[in-house]
Amino acid sequence: MLAELVCLHVFALRLIHYAKVIPRDKFWKDPKNICMIAILALTLVDMIIYGALHAAGFYALRWSRVLRPLLLVNVTEGRQVGHVIPRGRPTGPERIAGLPPTPCARVKLRRAIRSIRNTLPQILSVFLLFIFSILIFSLMALKLFSKRGLTTADGAPYFSNYADAVFDLYVLVTTANSPDVMMPAYDAGSAFAVFFIVYVLVNTYIFMSVFLAVVFNNYKKYLKEEVRQLVRAKWRKMARAFAVLRESPEDGGEGRGEPLVSRASWNRLVRSVQPDISRAHTELLWSVSDDDNRGAIDERSFVQLADLLNIEVITLKSRPHPLDRLCPALYRSAPSRLVCRSVRHRAFAVAYDVVILINAVFIGLDEEEPMIANSEWAFLALYLLEILLKLYVIEPRTFFSAHSFWNWFDTIIVVCALVATVINAALESSGRYTSRQILDIVFILRVLRLIRVVDSIERFRTIMNTLIRIGPAILTFGQLVLVVYYVFAVVGMELFAGKVKFYEDAGDPARADCGNALLRGSAFARLGYCKNNFNNVVAAFVLLVQLTVVNQWHILSSGFTAVTHKSARIYFVLFHVVVVIVIINIFVAFVLEAFFLEYSLDKSDLHTELEKKIEQLQLGVAQDAMEDNLVGATETSDLEQPAEQSESSKHKLMFKIASKRYRTVDALLQRLFEADLEREDDDAADVRDGNGNFANPSFGAA
Amino acid sequence: MLAELVCLHVFALRLIHYAKVIPRDKFWKDPKNICMIAILALTLVDMIIYGALHAAGFYALRWSRVLRPLLLVNVTEGRQVGHVIPRGRPTGPERIAGLPPTPCARVKLRRAIRSIRNTLPQILSVFLLFIFSILIFSLMALKLFSKRGLTTADGAPYFSNYADAVFDLYVLVTTANSPDVMMPAYDAGSAFAVFFIVYVLVNTYIFMSVFLAVVFNNYKKYLKEEVRQLVRAKWRKMARAFAVLRESPEDGGEGRGEPLVSRASWNRLVRSVQPDISRAHTELLWSVSDDDNRGAIDERSFVQLADLLNIEVITLKSRPHPLDRLCPALYRSAPSRLVCRSVRHRAFAVAYDVVILINAVFIGLDEEEPMIANSEWAFLALYLLEILLKLYVIEPRTFFSAHSFWNWFDTIIVVCALVATVINAALESSGRYTSRQILDIVFILRVLRLIRVVDSIERFRTIMNTLIRIGPAILTFGQLVLVVYYVFAVVGMELFAGKVKFYEDAGDPARADCGNALLRGSAFARLGYCKNNFNNVVAAFVLLVQLTVVNQWHILSSGFTAVTHKSARIYFVLFHVVVVIVIINIFVAFVLEAFFLEYSLDKSDLHTELEKKIEQLQLGVAQDAMEDNLVGATETSDLEQPAEQSESSKHKLMFKIASKRYRTVDALLQRLFEADLEREDDDAADVRDGNGNFANPSFGAA
Repeated sequence: MLAELVCLHVFALRLIHYAKVIPRDKFWKDPKNICMIAILALTLVDMIIYGALHAAGFYALRWSRVLRPLLLVNVTEGRQVGHVIPRGRPTGPERIAGLPPTPCARVKLRRAIRSIRNTLPQILSVFLLFIFSILIFSLMALKLFSKRGLTTADGAPYFSNYADAVFDLYVLVTTANSPDVMMPAYDAGSAFAVFFIVYVLVNTYIFMSVFLAVVFNNYKKYLKEEVRQLVRAKWRKMARAFAVLRESPEDGGEGRGEPLVSRASWNRLVRSVQPDISRAHTELLWSVSDDDNRGAIDERSFVQLADLLNIEVITLKSRPHPLDRLCPALYRSAPSRLVCRSVRHRAFAVAYDVVILINAVFIGLDEEEPMIANSEWAFLALYLLEILLKLYVIEPRTFFSAHSFWNWFDTIIVVCALVATVINAALESSGRYTSRQILDIVFILRVLRLIRVVDSIERFRTIMNTLIRIGPAILTFGQLVLVVYYVFAVVGMELFAGKVKFYEDAGDPARADCGNALLRGSAFARLGYCKNNFNNVVAAFVLLVQLTVVNQWHILSSGFTAVTHKSARIYFVLFHVVVVIVIINIFVAFVLEAFFLEYSLDKSDLHTELEKKIEQLQLGVAQDAMEDNLVGATETSDLEQPAEQSESSKHKLMFKIASKRYRTVDALLQRLFEADLEREDDDAADVRDGNGNFANPSFGAA
Repeated sequence: MLAELVCLHVFALRLIHYAKVIPRDKFWKDPKNICMIAILALTLVDMIIYGALHAAGFYALRWSRVLRPLLLVNVTEGRQVGHVIPRGRPTGPERIAGLPPTPCARVKLRRAIRSIRNTLPQILSVFLLFIFSILIFSLMALKLFSKRGLTTADGAPYFSNYADAVFDLYVLVTTANSPDVMMPAYDAGSAFAVFFIVYVLVNTYIFMSVFLAVVFNNYKKYLKEEVRQLVRAKWRKMARAFAVLRESPEDGGEGRGEPLVSRASWNRLVRSVQPDISRAHTELLWSVSDDDNRGAIDERSFVQLADLLNIEVITLKSRPHPLDRLCPALYRSAPSRLVCRSVRHRAFAVAYDVVILINAVFIGLDEEEPMIANSEWAFLALYLLEILLKLYVIEPRTFFSAHSFWNWFDTIIVVCALVATVINAALESSGRYTSRQILDIVFILRVLRLIRVVDSIERFRTIMNTLIRIGPAILTFGQLVLVVYYVFAVVGMELFAGKVKFYEDAGDPARADCGNALLRGSAFARLGYCKNNFNNVVAAFVLLVQLTVVNQWHILSSGFTAVTHKSARIYFVLFHVVVVIVIINIFVAFVLEAFFLEYSLDKSDLHTELEKKIEQLQLGVAQDAMEDNLVGATETSDLEQPAEQSESSKHKLMFKIASKRYRTVDALLQRLFEADLEREDDDAADVRDGNGNFANPSFGAA
């Protein structure tokens, strides 16, 4: 509670600070702020009540904990506030510099939640029809089976009352009690199988697909609307920035009276937006914007800047190898060149793939045999040798560039495995003591090393790259799931904490009924689910994951209804509806959409133009290397280096567009809906804001 | 075997007949025919071998049964053959009359199978990566858990060997053993939950979504290609038909040398394609095609004909009510008019919705109480009264028109319920004997009656209509699933028939181990799954449905591996891969696509033009009635009738486009990909066939 009080203070102080900075009327108009104040007040009230009741020895409920995720979601965007306003320069390039803001995780999360909220009414219609269908089928089941004197496998009456029938059939939708619920009727008469097959077909297959379709469709619709608003805001703000920075054509005297932005102010702008951008990258962007070399750009090209900055351009610096600088005679000698050539040869990669496969077999064998245990040192040495050889051939900073995922992966895994193995060996030789934890880590690292083989198979690499690319989007949903899980975990802990206990000692007789006599002989206790309880947040989260997976959902929930009341089913059904029907479907929808994008769309026109420019300026990496993975690309750039050594210093830099990859999820989303946005905005004149002279930049066409 | 021999003869005779009709070289070039001959020969060989072995008392396998579905799929398209060729007129309108052919179910099925076959290579890549992931995780599980001395809830060793670890983790992907497989490790240490959560996230959620995405994407791609070929073939054939039917402009002397088709030959064509088309409908279509009343149409309009015929136009004949004809004085009297007005009033529908709700409550109550049992008669009378009243008001042929789904539904259900209730009552009063079967039917009919309430709630109606509309597409997949099920059922019966037996008598001690000592004490027998066996086709199908639902999949399969051999797992894993990963995903993909179509597309331009024409000619039903359901529309047409009575006989007919509904799945598919087809074909000049003068009709623009 002390920790919570401190947190409350921090949030309150932040809000007060924010209220001081922001104009008063604006502050009170923002529902987020009012929501924050309400949550803080309610939390405080709850804490006081709880403290008082607790002190007086009464039972008290900490209900305000459910509100905590809202606090997280509603916190005002720290970055934008902290970045733009405190500097006290409300106009000028720095204000625009905040734009296009890379929305922080919280904004993305809030947007995801808003999209879901907007999707709900549509889902509700289908959901009601779905519930109606369950009610009708339950009524039929009640009429058909209740009077036959059938019993379930446990000897309980079969479909004996309506509420239980509805619940049983709801569980059947999740498929958790799939053949069991049908068996008594099926045993009584084969024709009854038709009832259950029709039920599963209608409710599990068709309705669940319809849910996915509705969620997918609505989620996409509202997301598109959000993205459209964002894009329009961006264009509008870029146009306003243009109005601030433009030099009136009368001053310059050139052009046909068209306002232009000079290179100097453009440079200043870019540098203030991205202080870490390289000069060469800036030059490249400028050359794309100022296509006809006028020394200034018009509004159309200026507005593109935000999108240009969102295209991830990898700057490859082809530096000479440090050994080459230190002792060129040795590094350029014939044996050294032979080493370099052999390491770069395909056979080297193939040889190591074979090593990995042999290693996989050895891992599978019993590690307690001394021969196997010692072979591990040999494999470690081989892997270390590989990394060292590669470092000998490839310039270290290139080898460890930010985009060389597999190089980083390899090195970290091998070094960690080395350290862990050494520690383990040291522990073992001294005092004969083996730490199970360290051994576990060693095992995991050993197996993880095998994953590397995926990268050397072409057909797997493309799938892996797609998966890695949609990773950030999945993380956004991870946050969303965490927030929902947290709410359910807190509610679950209030309802069920301490009711089901787990006893570490396998011999403890209390283990048989999870420390609760009500569970004696229940399926929950019999299957050994005692550790699935709400006694702490971690256990609650693990339990919620199991409920999300759905299987044995009815047995897990039956355990908690047994120790409390039948109405506890509401909690579990609610969790199923919220997480499995809504959130998992949105997750699937997003993965689908991201995959369709990867399959159907190629690079945007802006991308293409940037690439063309890179090619024109002969700064590019060979096309075939681009198709290759990043390690390959870096190697190629390294290979080309000696030939370019003699050329101008400018040519030491090479660019490569991380094809189809975007800096932010926003840019991805914009690309996702670009075609639609364009079409709709072409005839929508209302985007043109107060500046009047702002023509919509046509996104696709450069 | 006798039945099979007869079937073989039929197929063989058919093939010989076909070979006689078709040119010899064409017959032998068709892989379908060769496939058929091979299957017939193999089946015959199999039957002889089986007969011989069986007669000699040896064990024999009827392996050729697996080939039977291929026979079904490969049968030559009976309709096209029977319809076009035997008439012996290879040219002229009748030949074209076969086009656009409504492809028979078998063709659609074959197309669906072809699409799946084309999708497989892409799925394979993802599948291999998925298997690789399972292998890696299994290796990790083996290393982490095998040496800890853990046991499962059954006391079996936990992850003790690699093959079992792989199988257990594969089962976890299906979520069938969800918390159970994790519990021993979780009990040993909370941190191990992370391993299983990561596993489920990667393999169940991400990989399964990727499967859906890949299947969806590829299936759509290949389906689109198929549809494109179909559409092109249609256009080409329509153009050829035009070339046959056109009158050279020199003869007519009118026009600018453009070839035209006269109304007379057009009429002949339409009547030979659709003999049952009404004259008014023909006139309507002609007026759409011949927009500027030239009395002849050019190629562009002519080619549209196939699509025009595919738009479902409902002809509403506003006939006077038979009672009105028989005794107009009575039917038009004030009380009769009052009855008509009150039945058409909204309150009438609302009153009956209330009746249905009350009935639902009564059904839920115990039907053995005499009050409740007698109330059933009252409800039946009320429902009958409703139908009779509606028949009094609405012209019977309108009431029972093909598209009045709910009228048909109501009447059939009520009449069946009446008949069944009367039979039941008769049986009960005589001899005190109650037939359980008839009572079951009565119960089902009673509950089904309640579904009608869905139609009176607007938000449900739209969803229901969409579901009814995608019904035919679902049926195509139903066939596909049946074929796959049949193959697996036959294989399963060969492998497992008679191994697991079900004993009807609950007291039979053999019931405890399903008549097989190997199952004693197994989870399969304990859960009472004995009736889930492969002893006959029906039982096999029910079991396969349960395996499709996936839950308890591992227990069902463990039963059959226990009575045979561990390698029987291959059968169950294969079934899961084929049905759950491939076919169910395609099913979901199709439902998704159909729903997206319903949501995103409005009527086609051709639709719109047809509608405009109907409006122009004042033949339409009021727009608001069109939005209403079909009963409403018919009622409206009936209401308007007295006013139109005096007008020309032509006005007695009214048209209504069954909005967005298509006659065939093909037309739906064409519409599905229309936008893409157009775009691609606009610049694809290769569609223009030998006729040279054939310009592609732009599909969207009339």
